[in-house]
Amino acid sequence: MTIPFASLGRQLLKDNLDALLFSTSETLTSTNLKFVTGFTGSDASVVLTRSEGHLFTDGRYKTQARLESPLLAVHVVRSRVDALCRFLRRSGLRRIGVESSRLSYEFVTTLTSRVPELHLVPLRRQVLENLRIRKSQEEKLLIKKAAAVASEACAEIVGAGIQGKKECEVAAELESLFRRHGAEGIAFETIVAAGERSALPHASPSERVIGHGELVIIDFGCRVRGYHSDETITCITGKPTDEQKRIHQTVYAAHNKALEAARVGMKVRELDRVARQTIEAAGLGRFFLHGLGHGVGLEIHEPPRLSPRGTGVLREGMVFTIEPGVYVEGFGGVRLESLVFLTETGPEILSEMPKELISVG
Amino acid sequence: MTIPFASLGRQLLKDNLDALLFSTSETLTSTNLKFVTGFTGSDASVVLTRSEGHLFTDGRYKTQARLESPLLAVHVVRSRVDALCRFLRRSGLRRIGVESSRLSYEFVTTLTSRVPELHLVPLRRQVLENLRIRKSQEEKLLIKKAAAVASEACAEIVGAGIQGKKECEVAAELESLFRRHGAEGIAFETIVAAGERSALPHASPSERVIGHGELVIIDFGCRVRGYHSDETITCITGKPTDEQKRIHQTVYAAHNKALEAARVGMKVRELDRVARQTIEAAGLGRFFLHGLGHGVGLEIHEPPRLSPRGTGVLREGMVFTIEPGVYVEGFGGVRLESLVFLTETGPEILSEMPKELISVG
Repeated sequence: MTIPFASLGRQLLKDNLDALLFSTSETLTSTNLKFVTGFTGSDASVVLTRSEGHLFTDGRYKTQARLESPLLAVHVVRSRVDALCRFLRRSGLRRIGVESSRLSYEFVTTLTSRVPELHLVPLRRQVLENLRIRKSQEEKLLIKKAAAVASEACAEIVGAGIQGKKECEVAAELESLFRRHGAEGIAFETIVAAGERSALPHASPSERVIGHGELVIIDFGCRVRGYHSDETITCITGKPTDEQKRIHQTVYAAHNKALEAARVGMKVRELDRVARQTIEAAGLGRFFLHGLGHGVGLEIHEPPRLSPRGTGVLREGMVFTIEPGVYVEGFGGVRLESLVFLTETGPEILSEMPKELISVG
Repeated sequence: MTIPFASLGRQLLKDNLDALLFSTSETLTSTNLKFVTGFTGSDASVVLTRSEGHLFTDGRYKTQARLESPLLAVHVVRSRVDALCRFLRRSGLRRIGVESSRLSYEFVTTLTSRVPELHLVPLRRQVLENLRIRKSQEEKLLIKKAAAVASEACAEIVGAGIQGKKECEVAAELESLFRRHGAEGIAFETIVAAGERSALPHASPSERVIGHGELVIIDFGCRVRGYHSDETITCITGKPTDEQKRIHQTVYAAHNKALEAARVGMKVRELDRVARQTIEAAGLGRFFLHGLGHGVGLEIHEPPRLSPRGTGVLREGMVFTIEPGVYVEGFGGVRLESLVFLTETGPEILSEMPKELISVG
């Protein structure tokens, strides 16, 4: 991992900051801390000045921190917040840039009450996003690898048949194949939602047995060296009814049109609009309950956010999902999701499963 | 799940609050929101007054929110923070109790800048902890079930031999057995750390092949209906050297003494002391790099915190780990962890693997 010290350093100068503070904990993870320092443990605070970096963590990470972050001075301490306050008080650092969405209110009030001379300045979202929003070739290859592993596992599961199995069994089999094919873990809890449960966009797999003639949404992803994949297919057990076919065809058309339209320089909300208009034209607009997609990388959901309210434009090197869906309560739903890497000539599709309505046993 | 409205209501009165606010997001999860409302989705804010409850979420959770939280008024909105601000402005609610460790600094500053008349009052930690710190019989049974599934899976893996396998392979096999035996997922990323890597208390499983004569720490757990288990064993591939044996015996003695000593009414730091003294007496005190244990429930790490700086006393119905460890950089480590439920007559051990030094192939 290359440390983007240069861009962070520019940020320090621009906002007249003395230092940057990143903090990660089990409940509130800073992926930027990991990206910038290489440290993968669950609890640490990092202070970066123009000339030096300090990492505060506890005894569990004594050896690991030195291995992973050789450029930083590692402070192994009993109480991270106590040590950090002491350090900041003595250091004379005053204007400190922080990731305000990745610090808890409690942490901030503790720091500012114990070191009243501190001035914590929320870093602009834009700056932080830009750290990771365009992927390097190395990053892209890891995401592509994760996507290939996940698609391969899904093809196996679907090929073996899913009818008569519980949703949670299908999810479990899929997740265990990820590991067998070389993933280090799941990207998120796999969604397997059949029948009327396919109308719940974010259903947890239940004990429900998958019946005949049911729409089944499978939303899955795995991780390779910290990088995520994300893909969704919709199957039908047996033959689809006309209504099931119509919903699928609508979502499929929206998915394909968005894939064709995606271009460097396009506004993210315009791409959402392309898919949404297709679904609206079929009279199903009110059933498309979420945005078109999201960025994927070291986090499963990261910028850009492709939605009617999303801001910004698509840029080369972005990795994001295109995942329109239609969810009809009491009837069922269809979601189709591809993962793409945006190049100068258009999207390269990283996910590998077909998006036609897959008829399965 | 019973909604502990009664205890929350008392809290409202006691602190002269108009309402309580809980918020959960993908990056900052409020387990208390889930516990209090039953809602299991990833994004929601909840406002509870003396007489009513409001849940704000987005379209993905429209149906699910109504199913899981039938007692709350569900508001399906595009922008949760916009809707929440509008609601709070109109509602006339002013003094609002919040979980300050589970709200981001950004979220709080957004609310207070848009609704300046709001007064957000951090709820005392004690009150929030008491919501979940003593487990009901139903909760205990779910944790016991998770512990049994995980122990059984571990016994199979260890019985089949681990020498010659990669650390990450062993972790993958173990995790896939959890699912096959009825778990809904892992409790945390399984740790398998062999040889000198066993000296890293929180190592991620690597590509390293497990050799002969190596200490191997396996720290594992799974989830059943949201409740976690947590257990650690240490194996030796082949025969232990005298030094490996001595370290294990010291940790084993500390583990057993703590199990024997744990009693209702005892200070948590006293129990830590019992184990720590045993390890110090063997001259290994400086290698015991963490606290003795932690509570386990809907979260893998929750109160009580058993450490030299922990506060409070052990109470009936608490579920926690006892997990002393010794980590010698460049040599290796031993950690032994049991999960217990505290009864009036002492701890009931929920985890099932033996804690002797396990000799494996």
